[in-house]
Amino acid sequence: MDLGQVLHMNGGVGEKSYANNSLLQQKVISTTKLLRDESIINVCGNTLPKSLAIADLGCSCGPNTLLVISETIKVVEKLYKKKNHKSPEYKIFLNDLPGNDFNTIFQSLDTFKENLRNEIKTEMDHCYIFGAPGSFYSRLFPDNSMHFVHSSYSLQFLSKVPKGVDDNKGNIYLSSTSPSNVLKAYYDQYKTDFSYFLKCRAQELVEGGCLFVTLIGRQSEDPSSKEISYLWDFMSVALKDMVLEGIIKEENLNSFNVPLYYPSLSEVKLEVLTEGSFSINQLDSSQIIFKELDNYKDAFNSKISGSLTEDGYNLGQCIRAIAEPLLVGHFGESVTKEAFNRFQKYVTDNVPKDRTKITNITMVLTKRP
Amino acid sequence: MDLGQVLHMNGGVGEKSYANNSLLQQKVISTTKLLRDESIINVCGNTLPKSLAIADLGCSCGPNTLLVISETIKVVEKLYKKKNHKSPEYKIFLNDLPGNDFNTIFQSLDTFKENLRNEIKTEMDHCYIFGAPGSFYSRLFPDNSMHFVHSSYSLQFLSKVPKGVDDNKGNIYLSSTSPSNVLKAYYDQYKTDFSYFLKCRAQELVEGGCLFVTLIGRQSEDPSSKEISYLWDFMSVALKDMVLEGIIKEENLNSFNVPLYYPSLSEVKLEVLTEGSFSINQLDSSQIIFKELDNYKDAFNSKISGSLTEDGYNLGQCIRAIAEPLLVGHFGESVTKEAFNRFQKYVTDNVPKDRTKITNITMVLTKRP
Repeated sequence: MDLGQVLHMNGGVGEKSYANNSLLQQKVISTTKLLRDESIINVCGNTLPKSLAIADLGCSCGPNTLLVISETIKVVEKLYKKKNHKSPEYKIFLNDLPGNDFNTIFQSLDTFKENLRNEIKTEMDHCYIFGAPGSFYSRLFPDNSMHFVHSSYSLQFLSKVPKGVDDNKGNIYLSSTSPSNVLKAYYDQYKTDFSYFLKCRAQELVEGGCLFVTLIGRQSEDPSSKEISYLWDFMSVALKDMVLEGIIKEENLNSFNVPLYYPSLSEVKLEVLTEGSFSINQLDSSQIIFKELDNYKDAFNSKISGSLTEDGYNLGQCIRAIAEPLLVGHFGESVTKEAFNRFQKYVTDNVPKDRTKITNITMVLTKRP
Repeated sequence: MDLGQVLHMNGGVGEKSYANNSLLQQKVISTTKLLRDESIINVCGNTLPKSLAIADLGCSCGPNTLLVISETIKVVEKLYKKKNHKSPEYKIFLNDLPGNDFNTIFQSLDTFKENLRNEIKTEMDHCYIFGAPGSFYSRLFPDNSMHFVHSSYSLQFLSKVPKGVDDNKGNIYLSSTSPSNVLKAYYDQYKTDFSYFLKCRAQELVEGGCLFVTLIGRQSEDPSSKEISYLWDFMSVALKDMVLEGIIKEENLNSFNVPLYYPSLSEVKLEVLTEGSFSINQLDSSQIIFKELDNYKDAFNSKISGSLTEDGYNLGQCIRAIAEPLLVGHFGESVTKEAFNRFQKYVTDNVPKDRTKITNITMVLTKRP
């Protein structure tokens, strides 16, 4: 299971899923899409490359896996047509961790291409789609080979649980009771990971190539602020209760921390500027409100894969999608099931509706000469 | 299930598998390996490209999937070292039909790379491995992008069952009783497929790039000659008996033909010359003797995946590996099981040991300027 990109995988925070939620969310989607369209148009610029290499990092496997690719190709086709230019050759690289279900993606490609050709109604040139398994916290592609690298809601995952968080006792993520060395360990890991991510992508992108990233961040400058991470607090409480009841051993809980970091906008900006390979075209944050909690109560009762409604994203599924593989790996299946039952109760009883929002960070970076 | 490349998939006709069979087979392996080594050295030539693109068509998924890639990289590393040149960047593309189990391959890549680095003991540069799902009877890669394209025992499969073989009644492949129009239909399909295969590869290879192919062919110029195809005759007999006993409907058998063609050396040569994109460096055939039939009797009793011995290939498994998915798709599982029981009996009772050999065709082609 791809921990790093499970969010997107579950049709989760993919943009399509916001569509039926609220006016605000619609605005976020359309803003992101407009920005992405604009970015790809900038990359093609006046040179209109004959061959265009596009990567999606953390593509995962779900109904939205090929959505951004499809939308991007449509924008490019429109641009080339407008400029009376022959459609380019597409080299599409779908990246995720090796545990992702690439088989399912690959089996959908013929239909995907056929539908796309029918929709575009232009003589689209060759479109080669490759699987590129591996962590995006490593080099994935040859030097100077990519024009447009996209990543949607995957980069809040760290490459690993930070070292030196042993005394984050009673918590499984950053919390108001986390000691300062734990906050520092998480932040340091974030800086190391994000900085290396930027370095790798800079090597892979052609000059003027674009890195387009959305991720879940936080509003406050305090890394232990509640916001979306309060949900991890509820999970901590559920697990702690299970320790008290003897279901989980205390040391087993103490050694469990999630490899996530929700950075603030200024933390992101600082790393981009410090790393230095990219100029910032756009970097901002916005708030996304999710459906009411009531709407995802049911989701807790079913398995992840079975709990998705067609139009639907909800926060509960999102958390479960992220947390379930982590918890199962550490505590086993039956403990995880029980932990989610308790978590559900805490959330239902305690989560005020105005907390059902997350901070969305969008960045559009261009590789410097 | 990848019909087109199932042979190789089952650890089948991959070269490693011949190793314990006989002196002759060892000779064939070492000859093929020598020839492949020589071919990749020719491709690198004096230019020693900084970035080397290598594809394996019909890579399938099994113990031998990455063997040729590993051996090829070792040869390149040795060459670059000898010439005091920095090791190149590798772009490896693993192709098979979308139904192939790419997930399993992808999950083995980290270990593969680590082992390779340890074995090579040189500072190997980046090695990017991608999955390239699709039929090799279509374009798979961008124009002028490949240096070395390899295909091992996959190209005897046609892209589809030829049209116009309705009156091949009582046979499921070419046989001495097949009407002449059926022989022609098979040959025409072979020509169409192989010619298009060559055209696609020529577009994908850089000038001077190499296409290295091994496949199962036939010795005789008569396309209905027995040789390896006599085994399909036994399967026909088994299925016909089942028609007589009312287990299979006659029309169901009559509409079943296998999408295979074992070409002769001169048929291969004619197509290469007619298509015209390649110059022939090497094109020859040799005979491979398999293990005694006794060795594969047991294999018929077990499922394909469970029937492989560690060192081992055998003809029975090979036929089963090819035929089982074809038969299951057409007749269903229980009929297929019964058909194989009967087939096993016919083979055991009737196959003379001197027939347990196949014709191996090897070609090394260079893209013309």
